[in-house]
Amino acid sequence: MYEAREALVVFTPSGRRGRFPVGTPVLEAARALGVDIDSVCGGRGLCGRCQVDLCEGHFAKHGVASWPDHLTAKSDTERAWETRRGPLRAGRRLSCSTQLLGDAVIDVPAMSQVYRQVVRKRAEVLDIALDPIVRLYYVAVPPPDMNVPASDLRRLKEALTREWSLDGLETDIRVIQQLQTALRQGDWGVTVAVHDDRRLIGVWPGFQSQVYGMAVDVGSTTIAAHLCHLQTGEVVASAGRMNPQIRYGEDLMSRVSYLMMNPGGEVAMTRSVREAINALTLALADEAGVAVETILEATVVGNPIMQSLVFGIDPVELGGAPFALATDEAIDGLWATEMDLVIHPNARVYGLPCIAGHVGADTSGMILSETPYLGEELMLLVDVGTNAEIVLGNRHRLLACSSPTGPAFEGAQISGGQRAAAGAIERVRIDPLTLEPRYRVIGCEQWSDEPGFAEAVAPHGVTGICGSGIIEVVAELYLAGIITPEGVVQGGLAARSERIVADGRTFSYVLHRDDSRTLAITQNDIRAIQLAKAALYAGIRLLMEQFGTQRVDHIRLAGAFGAHIDVKYAMILGLIPDCDLEHVTSAGNAAGTGARIALLSRKARREIEEVVRRVEKVETATEPRFQQHFVDAMAIPHRHDLFPQLSAHVSLPAITEETDNAVRRGRRRRRQRV
Amino acid sequence: MYEAREALVVFTPSGRRGRFPVGTPVLEAARALGVDIDSVCGGRGLCGRCQVDLCEGHFAKHGVASWPDHLTAKSDTERAWETRRGPLRAGRRLSCSTQLLGDAVIDVPAMSQVYRQVVRKRAEVLDIALDPIVRLYYVAVPPPDMNVPASDLRRLKEALTREWSLDGLETDIRVIQQLQTALRQGDWGVTVAVHDDRRLIGVWPGFQSQVYGMAVDVGSTTIAAHLCHLQTGEVVASAGRMNPQIRYGEDLMSRVSYLMMNPGGEVAMTRSVREAINALTLALADEAGVAVETILEATVVGNPIMQSLVFGIDPVELGGAPFALATDEAIDGLWATEMDLVIHPNARVYGLPCIAGHVGADTSGMILSETPYLGEELMLLVDVGTNAEIVLGNRHRLLACSSPTGPAFEGAQISGGQRAAAGAIERVRIDPLTLEPRYRVIGCEQWSDEPGFAEAVAPHGVTGICGSGIIEVVAELYLAGIITPEGVVQGGLAARSERIVADGRTFSYVLHRDDSRTLAITQNDIRAIQLAKAALYAGIRLLMEQFGTQRVDHIRLAGAFGAHIDVKYAMILGLIPDCDLEHVTSAGNAAGTGARIALLSRKARREIEEVVRRVEKVETATEPRFQQHFVDAMAIPHRHDLFPQLSAHVSLPAITEETDNAVRRGRRRRRQRV
Repeated sequence: MYEAREALVVFTPSGRRGRFPVGTPVLEAARALGVDIDSVCGGRGLCGRCQVDLCEGHFAKHGVASWPDHLTAKSDTERAWETRRGPLRAGRRLSCSTQLLGDAVIDVPAMSQVYRQVVRKRAEVLDIALDPIVRLYYVAVPPPDMNVPASDLRRLKEALTREWSLDGLETDIRVIQQLQTALRQGDWGVTVAVHDDRRLIGVWPGFQSQVYGMAVDVGSTTIAAHLCHLQTGEVVASAGRMNPQIRYGEDLMSRVSYLMMNPGGEVAMTRSVREAINALTLALADEAGVAVETILEATVVGNPIMQSLVFGIDPVELGGAPFALATDEAIDGLWATEMDLVIHPNARVYGLPCIAGHVGADTSGMILSETPYLGEELMLLVDVGTNAEIVLGNRHRLLACSSPTGPAFEGAQISGGQRAAAGAIERVRIDPLTLEPRYRVIGCEQWSDEPGFAEAVAPHGVTGICGSGIIEVVAELYLAGIITPEGVVQGGLAARSERIVADGRTFSYVLHRDDSRTLAITQNDIRAIQLAKAALYAGIRLLMEQFGTQRVDHIRLAGAFGAHIDVKYAMILGLIPDCDLEHVTSAGNAAGTGARIALLSRKARREIEEVVRRVEKVETATEPRFQQHFVDAMAIPHRHDLFPQLSAHVSLPAITEETDNAVRRGRRRRRQRV
Repeated sequence: MYEAREALVVFTPSGRRGRFPVGTPVLEAARALGVDIDSVCGGRGLCGRCQVDLCEGHFAKHGVASWPDHLTAKSDTERAWETRRGPLRAGRRLSCSTQLLGDAVIDVPAMSQVYRQVVRKRAEVLDIALDPIVRLYYVAVPPPDMNVPASDLRRLKEALTREWSLDGLETDIRVIQQLQTALRQGDWGVTVAVHDDRRLIGVWPGFQSQVYGMAVDVGSTTIAAHLCHLQTGEVVASAGRMNPQIRYGEDLMSRVSYLMMNPGGEVAMTRSVREAINALTLALADEAGVAVETILEATVVGNPIMQSLVFGIDPVELGGAPFALATDEAIDGLWATEMDLVIHPNARVYGLPCIAGHVGADTSGMILSETPYLGEELMLLVDVGTNAEIVLGNRHRLLACSSPTGPAFEGAQISGGQRAAAGAIERVRIDPLTLEPRYRVIGCEQWSDEPGFAEAVAPHGVTGICGSGIIEVVAELYLAGIITPEGVVQGGLAARSERIVADGRTFSYVLHRDDSRTLAITQNDIRAIQLAKAALYAGIRLLMEQFGTQRVDHIRLAGAFGAHIDVKYAMILGLIPDCDLEHVTSAGNAAGTGARIALLSRKARREIEEVVRRVEKVETATEPRFQQHFVDAMAIPHRHDLFPQLSAHVSLPAITEETDNAVRRGRRRRRQRV
């Protein structure tokens, strides 16, 4: 039998090892070796965060004799924990309440690590090294002694130093105000929240293990938020709601115009967006069964105007040249009370940095989420809204610009356009022989030419066409030869199909007609899409030119636009440059993901702050080459040699030399007008 | 003629010297040599802070040849400044606008030094090395350039680094909110306020040179405040007003009792004291013609209960053993908005640290003002209010306690007692032969036996007796032999004087009688003073005993009590220990002075924080020796051998051995009761 006053312990997966006196708690041994094991309660068997697995037999391989007992038997503390929280998995122990009796190999499962990797559950899989800025610590504070006068705060801090090696903490005034009651209600045991390892921002009587954070993405139209558990990284609830500022103007520029006409109006606009965030917070907390007082951190992304308004900065300077930002730094450590948020009053708010007057914190969020700055491959990020934010680069260099696409891609400024909602046409195919369309409507499984479509669509009818539908119909009109590369509806085809109808001096294509409405794609609609796509493509070209590249390796399309459009059609229309279609993917709500990463990782905050400083800002408004690219991009791409990768997927209409020349003439004329 | 490409310059009083190219501005040379010259405008000739005197001829002593011109002639900038601000004193120049032409000796007057000594104007003379935590800097910021996008804040910070070597500044959100307007209104010139060399807390368009601070002393009865110019240290206005909390109870303990009966009542009490501070602030600002928005810093002292209430901390724990403070640290850097103060919203508030449950930030202020911790001599500091705060020590050791004197010294609990106000008797003399009194009344130049007294006193009459009067009358009663050392009014003397009258089973002394009132000193009044002085003296004895000393070198009496009592009578009654009377002096409002020092000097804050940690707190409530000393101190001192220094000034009544024995018997009886 192996007798030892000391036991050898090896921790996996870190491989750290050491010898400790028999009787040493496993957690203490881990701490001494610098092994990452979580604990909130400080080894009191309350939090259950320090679970480990005993791996027996490993030592035999290394020639160590067998031994009867490696660890003490399950303790009363562990049994009490199991009574409260359910049985521990077989072989699993609370490392704080288990002592070493002999040599042992102990595995620390991912769930017990503080700095573990978190794999996100949804479409976008992403690893974040969890390192939240707020952590909880349970601590027992000696009661006061009249003969050794030391204030309650001093004794708390001394206990935090003793138990948690936390030194020199600063303290929020509200913690001081609440401390005495908390200590006495908790019978001299309290849980404190420490911000960034240096400031006490919360105190609760007794043991408290839940602390949450909010990641908020403030869009011009929609405000979206995720409620996350800060210790696990888990998203416990997500929701979105309309941005109430829409009452001040549908798009950003009309809101800034409103402010120019109504100085001081930013106060009401700030209030309304904060109220919307609060309503969203209450809904999320309610859904997840979380008390708002346990939300101790929030991060915010938004375009420059929304980010300004959220933080109470008048965005009026962003309404005109030279588009000066008040700040291009992160807003760091702002008190929630300063923003009248309903979360814990000492919660801090972090706003990701804006990049330039037209390139906001939402773009910073997208960069943080997509990390183009880490790889060698050239990545193009595009977030299309009223403006398109475009980022191009790799680990060596990053460029960003904003391009004024206008709202056509969102269905606005289109005669039958509408937001993506039930009843909107979202997919379109046109038979190049008959010129007849078929389409799909949101809220309806069937295509329009499939059985049961009429019944399925009946509840709401066909109400309009949304962004992805517009792009598809224009591309299909082109593929069917109904419009020329210049975008002109061929009136001559009216003889072949009654879908083509005269509309004053131009022609329209009737996509849908029923008793209540006729939905036609007009020449103006096609022009609006051409203008939007030309602006987007010109911005991309400008960045590619400044980067000195003719190709990109990956294209990531962010936001609702990226999630819904068929990238093939985007490429047919020439929204994006030629690229292997498999490398053109949706990035989802990349800005919101960036906010969530910043919420869960301090390192990520420093990273994006540093990356943003390196981004080269390209101003489309003053760059003469942008106008050039814009004019060049009006036509629909028709030269196969320019889109070799797209041509592998799509048969473009045969273009005669005559057509080609007509397009060139058109370009020249337009260039002269500009 | 002495020709040189370089000029030698010597600055006095620092003695720093160096050679500089001819044409170097004097301010630049001073900066290069590390000479302390103030400037807010950064050498633009706006602020007038950098004035220097040219001292010609000094060099001749050192054998340097004569020269025609040392400095450039008065510049247009200087003339413009004189037009705005009045002529410069003869020989005085703005060092920023004056260049070296040849060797020169330049004197930097005290007013131009940043870290100058400030000599206070009032009774208490005190040197403070001025080092305010808030400083102003004028800076010119380049306008924004669309092609080099850098936010307004970034360009401001870069300018501050360039012009003022300020690096890595943090920024208050309100500064970001106001920055764009300020820059544009100021035509790209702004003045910023920097807190503690590390955070931007204020911004104003153009040049701004005034920044103020408030030092607030929150007493139980009175709130006093000084408004100070932070750059000069000058007190521009001072005022006091009643503490409105008096509605919750006359003294502290009744206010805490109110809170115990009315949980949550501290919210209203906090609000009322903050409102009083705001009213005082507005009055001071109005008096001095200062905008409240230019008040950027405030310091607060108060006893533990008042300090707690000002900072929104429920003081209820201070109402009973073990008298635990929420915090004994300084409250540092609290936003004025957190306290709803009317000063600049980004102003920060500093609360001096409390020492123990009964020894507050007012005592810290007194220690900072009197600096017992700097010298070798043993200093006793006494601040008498409802409690007496007592500090004893020197640079080696400091002890502090609080002793429950009750309010008798303030005229409360005395039959004819009143606050010090017109009509109150403040000085008393009693003829030991006739037993007749004469006295002086506040608001009246004459003594009561002088011609014109009746006319002078007529407007208000004789309304009562205040604290200093009570002490004098009891001491004089003793010196006249009317009361025994035990404090008993000798009824037998009623036969000699009709001033001595029976009052139930005891006797009173009629001090004043007119048509409207009779003012008599009753046996109970004398007992109340005996209890109060015994408590004070017992506290002092306890500290002396713990320090291991039988004597003190200096006694400083703080507050209104210290300012008004005649120390001789205090010593006769035995309030304070024997000490050379010349070394017993008034410290004025030492707590308020401490608040002012903390306002003007960062170093002083660190100093008092460090000193307070070293103070040994002595708890009178649990110290058995305190009871002993208390009983011993009830009698009036009558043993000349115990008070040799006092005896040099006063003839104490002859005490017979019989009286002495009676006193001893009395003490024994009282000790048994305790």
